[in-house]
Amino acid sequence: MADVARAAGVSSATVSYVLSGKRPVAAATRAAVEAAIAELHFTVNVTARNLRTGSSSLVALIVPDIANPFFAQLAATLQEELRGLGLHVVVCSTRARRDEEQALLAEAVQQRFAGVVITPFRLKPGDFQFVADSGMPLVVSADVSFGPIDLVTPDARVATRRALERVAAQRRRIAMIAGPRDATGGDPRLEHLRALALQFGMSLPHELVVRGEHTREAGAAGFRELMSRRYRPDAVFCGNDVIAVGAMDKAHELGIDIPGEVALIGHDDASFASLVRPQLTTIRYPAADVARAAARLLTERLEGRKVHKTVHVKAEFVERATV
Amino acid sequence: MADVARAAGVSSATVSYVLSGKRPVAAATRAAVEAAIAELHFTVNVTARNLRTGSSSLVALIVPDIANPFFAQLAATLQEELRGLGLHVVVCSTRARRDEEQALLAEAVQQRFAGVVITPFRLKPGDFQFVADSGMPLVVSADVSFGPIDLVTPDARVATRRALERVAAQRRRIAMIAGPRDATGGDPRLEHLRALALQFGMSLPHELVVRGEHTREAGAAGFRELMSRRYRPDAVFCGNDVIAVGAMDKAHELGIDIPGEVALIGHDDASFASLVRPQLTTIRYPAADVARAAARLLTERLEGRKVHKTVHVKAEFVERATV
Repeated sequence: MADVARAAGVSSATVSYVLSGKRPVAAATRAAVEAAIAELHFTVNVTARNLRTGSSSLVALIVPDIANPFFAQLAATLQEELRGLGLHVVVCSTRARRDEEQALLAEAVQQRFAGVVITPFRLKPGDFQFVADSGMPLVVSADVSFGPIDLVTPDARVATRRALERVAAQRRRIAMIAGPRDATGGDPRLEHLRALALQFGMSLPHELVVRGEHTREAGAAGFRELMSRRYRPDAVFCGNDVIAVGAMDKAHELGIDIPGEVALIGHDDASFASLVRPQLTTIRYPAADVARAAARLLTERLEGRKVHKTVHVKAEFVERATV
Repeated sequence: MADVARAAGVSSATVSYVLSGKRPVAAATRAAVEAAIAELHFTVNVTARNLRTGSSSLVALIVPDIANPFFAQLAATLQEELRGLGLHVVVCSTRARRDEEQALLAEAVQQRFAGVVITPFRLKPGDFQFVADSGMPLVVSADVSFGPIDLVTPDARVATRRALERVAAQRRRIAMIAGPRDATGGDPRLEHLRALALQFGMSLPHELVVRGEHTREAGAAGFRELMSRRYRPDAVFCGNDVIAVGAMDKAHELGIDIPGEVALIGHDDASFASLVRPQLTTIRYPAADVARAAARLLTERLEGRKVHKTVHVKAEFVERATV
């Protein structure tokens, strides 16, 4: 602030009045201060907030995989929503590794970021304690709760039921390519599918669940494994769309017709779900809605809300061409 | 450092010896210091570097569009390359807006980031002066130079020539869906194509160049516009693959066969170029190589190199199914 005052040839108090709007300032003086601020490469928003709280204008979005377009969409909408507050979203990718998740959270606290939105993969609830202690606003976007922390989480009951209904009409043997066993909170998408399948007279036996990372490679490997089973599935649910695209790669390579021989169902509706051919049938978890909910929770925290909140975002069955 | 020393019950000098490795420290003492560091949620790398230079462990990758998988790939490889130095890459999206490019650069300097890699879109060379003054390492990844700054830039001569050779065998009327007129440095991909086309006995007249942002929507609008021309093109080059996918959307909608009626050539080879059907023929600008070059330049700067350098990364013609 002293730099700005010096450059504009006014007192620090005047700069403060211009920024806070608490007292009227002559137009010419205001213009000089704003020019000085622009010259010094600060935006009014950023400077004002720094003066207020000492925190930066950066909000970290910490995700397992930056190459998954679901997170790119989440990032883009989060940035839209927070722009009005003068906040910038920076995206950090952890490769689903706990040490990187920890390091990035620590860095965000140390650098006094304005807030963090995180999709944890291998963090445990206890890993968040130091963030809470720091007072930095934090929102978790995940299928499970990580303790008394603001949470955006899917409500996929209706969507999963509709997907199963559609599958049950023509298929008998469902399988799943799920995430890794050591992901925090297990795999709610799997548990959910298994519970609902029973209601449709189908089971999801352990030998038809294969596990791997949320990657295209793991999707390909998982699909190959399932196709080699004696009790071969005729419908495969995937933990997310990235896995599903990997499964499609492998089906193509093996000459297995989708949906003729095997139905395939993704999760998320990432941008490429409608680019691949055949277009992917999937359970849409709307990234833009998730981002809007996270932005709202973050904003409320910045405005002083103290109690934690959970927002459910509805998933939706999107029927395309792979079932 | 004082916090760590207090927590470990040792002197600050001892902490410094553990971090720098400059003097031997008893194993038990070292363990206590490391436990204190872990407890305080700093990694050794980060703390060591902060003590040394006062800068953070964050490197900003500032790009026009985080949803373009070319940049996601760039981010992932940059992170791989810089991990060994204890650096974390954070990705910031500017929506190709000059004010956001300026604000993010300013924020990186203000927060004492370890470095910045940027693909500028509307910044002018003068906009970088304050970064140079700050001493923060900076690498530009772009088709044109932005002054005396480290630069990673494509060498696409051979690839563009090969694309034109292939197109010239069967097509007569080439067109381009290019970037906006006010992008800094104009549109080298367009100038380049125009110059080379003459060598193949083809011209690229102004009425067959349409302009827009580097978005799917702009690609669709540009393709529709070109198809409405009296002198209708039979080959369309696109400024990048995102534009090309938009053009494919529109061709499908209009019932125009690709490549039967119109050949389509992208640029970059973003991940979805091989996901769309027909698979996109494109000029690959290898994101991983670009990231490796940028990481090397950044590392050299951190190690003290003073003179600026330019690295050329070779582009390559990738023939798939749209020509």
